[in-house]
Amino acid sequence: MKTTIRAARGTELSCRSWPQEAALRMLHNNLDPEVAEHPEELVVYGGTGKAARDWNSFHAIGRTLQTLKDDETLLVQSGKPVGVLQTHEWAPRVLIANSNLVGDWATWDEFRRLEALGLTMYGQMTAGSWIYIGTQGILQGTYETFAAVADKRFDGSLAGTITLTGGLGGMGGAQPLAVAMAGGVAICVEVDRTRIQRRLETGYLDVEADSIDHALQLATSATGPLSIGLLGNCADVFPELLRRGAPIDVVTDQTSAHDPLAYVPSGFAPGDEWSVEQARESMARHVEAMVGFQDAGAEVFDYGNSLRAEAQLGGYERAFDYPGFVPAYIRPLFCEGRGPFRWAALSGEPADIAATDKAVLELFPEHESLHRWLKLAAEKVQFQGLPARICWLGQGERHLAGLKFNELVESGAVQAPIVIGRDHLDCGSVASPYRETEAMLDGSDAIADWPLLNAMVNVASGASWVSLHHGGGVGIGRSLHAGQVSVADGTELAAQKLERVLTNDPAMGVIRHVDAGYERAEEIAAERDVRVPMAAAGE
Amino acid sequence: MKTTIRAARGTELSCRSWPQEAALRMLHNNLDPEVAEHPEELVVYGGTGKAARDWNSFHAIGRTLQTLKDDETLLVQSGKPVGVLQTHEWAPRVLIANSNLVGDWATWDEFRRLEALGLTMYGQMTAGSWIYIGTQGILQGTYETFAAVADKRFDGSLAGTITLTGGLGGMGGAQPLAVAMAGGVAICVEVDRTRIQRRLETGYLDVEADSIDHALQLATSATGPLSIGLLGNCADVFPELLRRGAPIDVVTDQTSAHDPLAYVPSGFAPGDEWSVEQARESMARHVEAMVGFQDAGAEVFDYGNSLRAEAQLGGYERAFDYPGFVPAYIRPLFCEGRGPFRWAALSGEPADIAATDKAVLELFPEHESLHRWLKLAAEKVQFQGLPARICWLGQGERHLAGLKFNELVESGAVQAPIVIGRDHLDCGSVASPYRETEAMLDGSDAIADWPLLNAMVNVASGASWVSLHHGGGVGIGRSLHAGQVSVADGTELAAQKLERVLTNDPAMGVIRHVDAGYERAEEIAAERDVRVPMAAAGE
Ligand SMILES: NC(=O)c1ccc[n+]([C@@H]2O[C@H](COP(=O)([O-])OP(=O)(O)OC[C@H]3O[C@@H](n4cnc5c(N)ncnc54)[C@H](O)[C@@H]3O)[C@@H](O)[C@H]2O)c1
Ligand SMILES: NC(=O)c1ccc[n+]([C@@H]2O[C@H](COP(=O)([O-])OP(=O)(O)OC[C@H]3O[C@@H](n4cnc5c(N)ncnc54)[C@H](O)[C@@H]3O)[C@@H](O)[C@H]2O)c1
Repeated sequence: MKTTIRAARGTELSCRSWPQEAALRMLHNNLDPEVAEHPEELVVYGGTGKAARDWNSFHAIGRTLQTLKDDETLLVQSGKPVGVLQTHEWAPRVLIANSNLVGDWATWDEFRRLEALGLTMYGQMTAGSWIYIGTQGILQGTYETFAAVADKRFDGSLAGTITLTGGLGGMGGAQPLAVAMAGGVAICVEVDRTRIQRRLETGYLDVEADSIDHALQLATSATGPLSIGLLGNCADVFPELLRRGAPIDVVTDQTSAHDPLAYVPSGFAPGDEWSVEQARESMARHVEAMVGFQDAGAEVFDYGNSLRAEAQLGGYERAFDYPGFVPAYIRPLFCEGRGPFRWAALSGEPADIAATDKAVLELFPEHESLHRWLKLAAEKVQFQGLPARICWLGQGERHLAGLKFNELVESGAVQAPIVIGRDHLDCGSVASPYRETEAMLDGSDAIADWPLLNAMVNVASGASWVSLHHGGGVGIGRSLHAGQVSVADGTELAAQKLERVLTNDPAMGVIRHVDAGYERAEEIAAERDVRVPMAAAGE
Repeated sequence: MKTTIRAARGTELSCRSWPQEAALRMLHNNLDPEVAEHPEELVVYGGTGKAARDWNSFHAIGRTLQTLKDDETLLVQSGKPVGVLQTHEWAPRVLIANSNLVGDWATWDEFRRLEALGLTMYGQMTAGSWIYIGTQGILQGTYETFAAVADKRFDGSLAGTITLTGGLGGMGGAQPLAVAMAGGVAICVEVDRTRIQRRLETGYLDVEADSIDHALQLATSATGPLSIGLLGNCADVFPELLRRGAPIDVVTDQTSAHDPLAYVPSGFAPGDEWSVEQARESMARHVEAMVGFQDAGAEVFDYGNSLRAEAQLGGYERAFDYPGFVPAYIRPLFCEGRGPFRWAALSGEPADIAATDKAVLELFPEHESLHRWLKLAAEKVQFQGLPARICWLGQGERHLAGLKFNELVESGAVQAPIVIGRDHLDCGSVASPYRETEAMLDGSDAIADWPLLNAMVNVASGASWVSLHHGGGVGIGRSLHAGQVSVADGTELAAQKLERVLTNDPAMGVIRHVDAGYERAEEIAAERDVRVPMAAAGE
């Protein structure tokens, strides 16, 4: 199948109503060549994260959405449409469950066996739930993370520092721009030249170095923000830089380490075949170098791709010596219900995003880092597919933005409805002991009740589509996570739904962290009327 | 805490509306000493299946339900009330997630660690979801199973046959009565005398034998249905009966084998302490004898308690030589959306159940086995706690019963609302490769998208409370399953909700089996208008 997929623009509907139309356009948008890494294989991002199980399923989803009524619900099981049921107007139009396996069978072997039988697909987080918006999606989170690193270690700016990282794929490609936005220099090691090329073209990467020497020379002589691509394998380059005593201040990595068959081992090229053992052996060397940099005084953190776990399986014992980015930088934000709020303009008009940017700035005039981000984003971000924006908003903020967008649609200030969603990586939507729930205060890292409650809460609050996935960025057996997308179509019903969804969804994050004993979450719950039955009684 | 818990009866409400009141009464009913195995420890059935995490949680749930509004939703995380959110009238009043763990952490060790920290509880299926109705719940399923065994091997009746089984606990206690109802003789081996006593008192068991010899003598000289309790350990008694060449026709088991610390190993007594290894060693001997009976020509099946898997871990290689009861007898019913429909009378009046029995008989005049069951049940079943009934109904039947019950409430033909729910062991609500989804036609046994979709569908269809559990009857790491309970309070809104829930919930079973390639399910889908987008196209 070689057709190029691109979301329809404008106000003409091919479905009965906007929520169905929105699902259809966002499914298509996920496979827009500007957005997807391998659209011809239905792969959106993360190496294997797909939007639909196969092309027959893709077309059947489209056909079904086009006839789906306003009180009907389509069921999607790992990218395949399996049923249509009569529900009601407040119910989601689509319910999605992707890649889920029973615990004892939650292994890559079993997953691949089932995938080969055509019975499942890997949904990543926003690939199979139709709300991926290209590299911008992660750019903001990545920017927030590096800004937090700067706050913690370098007096609020990465100016004068060198960051070393790996991977310039769908997620990792945001790193060079994010580091530069935070004022620093980045050396980004990537084994696939086409990825380097792509980041240069989209302005996410400034220059490519010819060699390790060249990269170091560029980095140490830079007088301002600079991002440098370097063709090479992290398992070779990281140890070599360590050996040379290169002046690296910050180290992380976003190679596709969650899947040993996607991580390219030393000595191999993308497209080759290798074994899980070979990949793990390389990851062990890769992580060993990262621990070496930490021993030498650098700020080192895991960026949520399971690299440490795989390196440990590869025989390197100190793999977990450096922390994940969530406990290190993100958890305080989660306690406030803060997370990756994002939206897209179904009109296809960049002006609609400009209007929403302005509305958000006006809604939260005192929110400094938000203003800095939105200004930089408007300058630097090239839209991929439908124009979209992301910014982190918290409890008590998200629903205000949602209601405001709905007003903009109603009044005609934007040209078509706005789709509002988020990553599954959010404050109360995920159980992932190597990432979002690593090192919880009460030890509840592995408890998976929360994403299940989150999905049910979003279904019960009026989201337009809701998804429950397994694996995501950290791989099979390592996470469960939920997502919601809601459509601001300017109607009164949409306003009521948005108010509930965008209040309750982040509230799950506040509640989850109150339950785990975080004081900041308790403060927020008290301040913003999040009701936690046993919090007051002191349990 | 020593207070005796018992559900309120009658029409006086302590909550704002019937759905909340129903949740409260059913929570209490689960802990009624007539219903629960160890109410003082909040344990309802299955050895460790609890209704609430601890007494503080129990009381907080009660308090919260008593003030919960008709557009609010209470969240329960492993038996603890963690939040109250504003939703809407069509949303469930309670959302429950119990015992769920991320795949790689889905082990008994991790579960017990978290349980000891007070962070989780074991919810079994209907314990933590507040719709256990005592031994009758399983009696009907057990009766259907033995009737199916009779159909398959013994010309439709167990008359003249001897069935050997183990375990007379909450679930297993139904076996003697079910075998007798199907015309046969049962020898039931139980290591705890108090359990034998209890089954004698409630009329589920006819006599107790003093010894193996006595049991055999009673069994072989019986001239009609007879159930015999025998104090002993299955790991000793089963091999001994095999050695003696006892004339056993059917063999199964319902000891608490899902949890090696609940299964009593040979040489130990209930209440002793033993190791996982000791339990598995005994289970290996227990299963070895069962395989021996099969080799000798008996009909042998696993009754959904993970005994085979544990015996295999205990070193016995042929453990999976005999099938689970689902592929052997139950799957054809699942293809029709058939499963354990159950209801309880909130009035507390047995007359209300008599009225509903009559209504069901009138609704389905041609359904022979249903008539036989309801007649036997009315005679033999002693109510435990609130009067309740169970019968297996399928796609196209359940909603008719629900709507009829709602009419009975509206017209005053019954004295108070009727609560309608089901076991999690149902046609489309569970992924459990050792039980409900063992040996699926397409190999999709371990795919867990289905219970998650089922829960979301029930939330989206108007159920009063919805639950998502892990572990159930087969143990941690081995299953995911969902449940719903809906309240027929005689209102028009309840009728609309019941119609959707009781159509969509069993439809998930039809859809799941269509997707797996079962022809019977395709026929039912065509006959009863279950819409499966890719079925018609032949995929
Ligand atoms: N931190 C987060 O918030 C987050 C979110 C989602 C996903 N992830 C995880 O981050 C990782 C990256 O995601 P992505 O979407 O960019 O994946 P991707 O597959 O699009 O990109 C991975 C890149 O790593 C490169 N690579 C692989 N092995 C390499 C090696 N040994 N040396 C150098 N380069 C190598 C590949 O060529 C590819 O370009 C994944 O594991 C993903 O699951 C993290
Ligand atoms: N088939 C189904 O549909 C279904 C449904 C739910 C649960 N189950 C499973 O069935 C099993 C029984 O459930 P239950 O609620 O009756 O559990 P229970 O704990 O109430 O009863 C188990 C009984 O087995 C006895 N026992 C334990 N070890 C023994 C041994 N070695 N020899 C003889 N007796 C022994 C115990 O004394 C106890 O009375 C559990 O594993 C449960 O998970 C099956």
